[in-house]
Amino acid sequence: MKNQTKIPQVVIIGAGFGGLKAARNLADAPVHVTLVDRNNYHLFQPLLYQVATAGVAPEEIAYPVRAVFRRQRNLDFQLAQVRRVDLEHCKLVTDQGELGYDYLILAAGGRTNFFGMDSLERNAFDLKELGDAVAIRNHVLRLFERAALEPDDAARQAMLTFVVAGGGPTGVESAGALSELIRLVLSKDFPRLKVSQARVLLLEAADRLLPAMAAELSDETVRALREKGVDVRFGAAVASFDGQKITLQDGQAIPTRTLIWAAGVRAAALVETLGIPLARQGRAPVAPTLQLPDHPEVFVIGDAAYLEDRSGKALPMVAPVATQQADAATANLRALLTGKPLHAFRYRDPGSMATIGRNRAVAQIGPLKLRGFIAWAAWLFVHLMKIVGFRNRLAVLLNWAWDYLFYDRAVRLIGGPEFEPEKAALR
Amino acid sequence: MKNQTKIPQVVIIGAGFGGLKAARNLADAPVHVTLVDRNNYHLFQPLLYQVATAGVAPEEIAYPVRAVFRRQRNLDFQLAQVRRVDLEHCKLVTDQGELGYDYLILAAGGRTNFFGMDSLERNAFDLKELGDAVAIRNHVLRLFERAALEPDDAARQAMLTFVVAGGGPTGVESAGALSELIRLVLSKDFPRLKVSQARVLLLEAADRLLPAMAAELSDETVRALREKGVDVRFGAAVASFDGQKITLQDGQAIPTRTLIWAAGVRAAALVETLGIPLARQGRAPVAPTLQLPDHPEVFVIGDAAYLEDRSGKALPMVAPVATQQADAATANLRALLTGKPLHAFRYRDPGSMATIGRNRAVAQIGPLKLRGFIAWAAWLFVHLMKIVGFRNRLAVLLNWAWDYLFYDRAVRLIGGPEFEPEKAALR
Repeated sequence: MKNQTKIPQVVIIGAGFGGLKAARNLADAPVHVTLVDRNNYHLFQPLLYQVATAGVAPEEIAYPVRAVFRRQRNLDFQLAQVRRVDLEHCKLVTDQGELGYDYLILAAGGRTNFFGMDSLERNAFDLKELGDAVAIRNHVLRLFERAALEPDDAARQAMLTFVVAGGGPTGVESAGALSELIRLVLSKDFPRLKVSQARVLLLEAADRLLPAMAAELSDETVRALREKGVDVRFGAAVASFDGQKITLQDGQAIPTRTLIWAAGVRAAALVETLGIPLARQGRAPVAPTLQLPDHPEVFVIGDAAYLEDRSGKALPMVAPVATQQADAATANLRALLTGKPLHAFRYRDPGSMATIGRNRAVAQIGPLKLRGFIAWAAWLFVHLMKIVGFRNRLAVLLNWAWDYLFYDRAVRLIGGPEFEPEKAALR
Repeated sequence: MKNQTKIPQVVIIGAGFGGLKAARNLADAPVHVTLVDRNNYHLFQPLLYQVATAGVAPEEIAYPVRAVFRRQRNLDFQLAQVRRVDLEHCKLVTDQGELGYDYLILAAGGRTNFFGMDSLERNAFDLKELGDAVAIRNHVLRLFERAALEPDDAARQAMLTFVVAGGGPTGVESAGALSELIRLVLSKDFPRLKVSQARVLLLEAADRLLPAMAAELSDETVRALREKGVDVRFGAAVASFDGQKITLQDGQAIPTRTLIWAAGVRAAALVETLGIPLARQGRAPVAPTLQLPDHPEVFVIGDAAYLEDRSGKALPMVAPVATQQADAATANLRALLTGKPLHAFRYRDPGSMATIGRNRAVAQIGPLKLRGFIAWAAWLFVHLMKIVGFRNRLAVLLNWAWDYLFYDRAVRLIGGPEFEPEKAALR
């Protein structure tokens, strides 16, 4: 099929930040693009924690891929799970059949890294997919319902102990939002329950939060979290979780039904099927042009790619790297097509930010360090602007305004078993 | 526990239209109310078909029960599945333990009636719960994705044939909304797919739609549906559905992957545990005061109750009957408490309406018959006003306005397997 016409066939795997950007960049290129994803939507991952804490509805942070590309004539979308990349024969093996390519942009993203700890993989929640977030929401709300009927004090205390592991942005934002959900909203929903019994713990194995930021912002983050009632613990490395209690590496036990694991990421499993030696976190080492060594027709971008900056540090697995690499990869792809020289990728760090609930956030943009209300307002603005689709933006804004004004959460529904993966069934 | 104080314990089963109204009515009564439901939300069932056809998000038609009753001091909510009513010992057996009552208001609602046809129960969708609607949405959208990759013409035709059985309001509204989803939205999402191959069939065993309305409105409904591309067939009684084809009682076969069964309702299974002789559709016969014969402390209302009007016709299983009976039952309960005489329930039919997509609806309110745009506007207004919670109202209005102006559907996401019951896995 693919050689009936002379138009080069570009396949992009993944409709995340990197894949979506790459596909858009090729709108006017003399190629045909097939974008493949296992979901029919682009997920705005930075707000996943708000779905998990009943702040926004799943529908508001997901946008149908076909709606994004309605007007892009040179693109087809395929809903498929890619099982394997066959570099030798330039094709993908998917659950919907095979798909050949002349050029491939692999933007398969990342997944949670449990570091081989089986008990966590089985019993802990993670926060990478829409379903994960819905599962956490259902689980937390159901535990409150169960706790309201639980006569035993110790059992109730364990039900109302919520543990987040990992002091990066996801861990910080989840812990802050969870604590506010409990203190501002659920305390009113459960007037007869001693909500003061509810605790949110944030466990960090090292000695500081948000290591990508300046130390003073880390300190501010700890302060803000503690003011919002989060019990922040350093040097606390999780060894196992059996669904009833967490055991730390120092032997300490924490009785709880809930561990949200935000302490590790690695590349998507698909990267392993490339059959090449992988770098740390299972990422595929790429040339500075983002091409696979020995396979100039394959670009790898985002979380799936391993590349170091000039100081020899691995580029982080964050959205700005993925979108900037999408720009570089598509520019280099166009250069390949026209026989022009390719350029090495250079990352321009736009800074980072994390919100810690109402009116509190931290942000570092180059030398500029923001905190408090102004950082929070900046966070709101940036995230709102980045959500795909004017409609979703409106819906999220409406929810945020409501929550802010009325100390409420929109979507504290328990979806029933049919809404969640097996792991989320009440323990 | 319950007799430590002298306050009468009232238990209400079900947070649907009837149960919710009854609980609110008792806010200032000298009783303690326990409201029990297996979901933590009140579901606005009349808009379920819009979730199924990607018009509104599940979160927008569900409202947390605890949020409704935050200020009602004499009420506790319990999230529990009632397994059995023990009339003799005045208690409920639930999956969370037992619960005694002095007075019981049973408002357990209805469920789908497959009339004992196993193949339908296994393979057809129904539309009573939030999960059902999400499952239909996922299934329909996934079939379009599959059809886009399907080379075989007959197989693709079967994938794109959507069958709704039942000519009542749910069937009519589902078929109309499904046809518009396909013709106005998906046709643009799938430019390379011959969407003209897609068909929506509405099967009705009898010879008219909306039997509760005047014949001229039935005719108008058929006309409107056909103009919107729905293939309406009368005298078409479904005999079986194996997931690949529907067989009608006259032997005709319709190859399809999708049957939405909206052709029958009956009372909730819980009614069977009362151990009393039941009336048609498994409903519990009640005295005109809505009490169970021999059990004056038990009121049954809504879909679960069987009562005839003065002409000997069974009251329909619709929301207005449930809410009016909630008023009557709580008034009679107060009369019981104060030793005053009880009153017989009299139903005042507020009329009925059904929408058939953009700008088209039918409504009958007493002698008044509306059709076309004015009926549609009336339908919009009535439904919007009835949705619990100002916030949900705003969200739904926003979605409706967007769809109307831009011929779009907000929430055409496929939720992944974790969002849906087993039945919905792609066949």
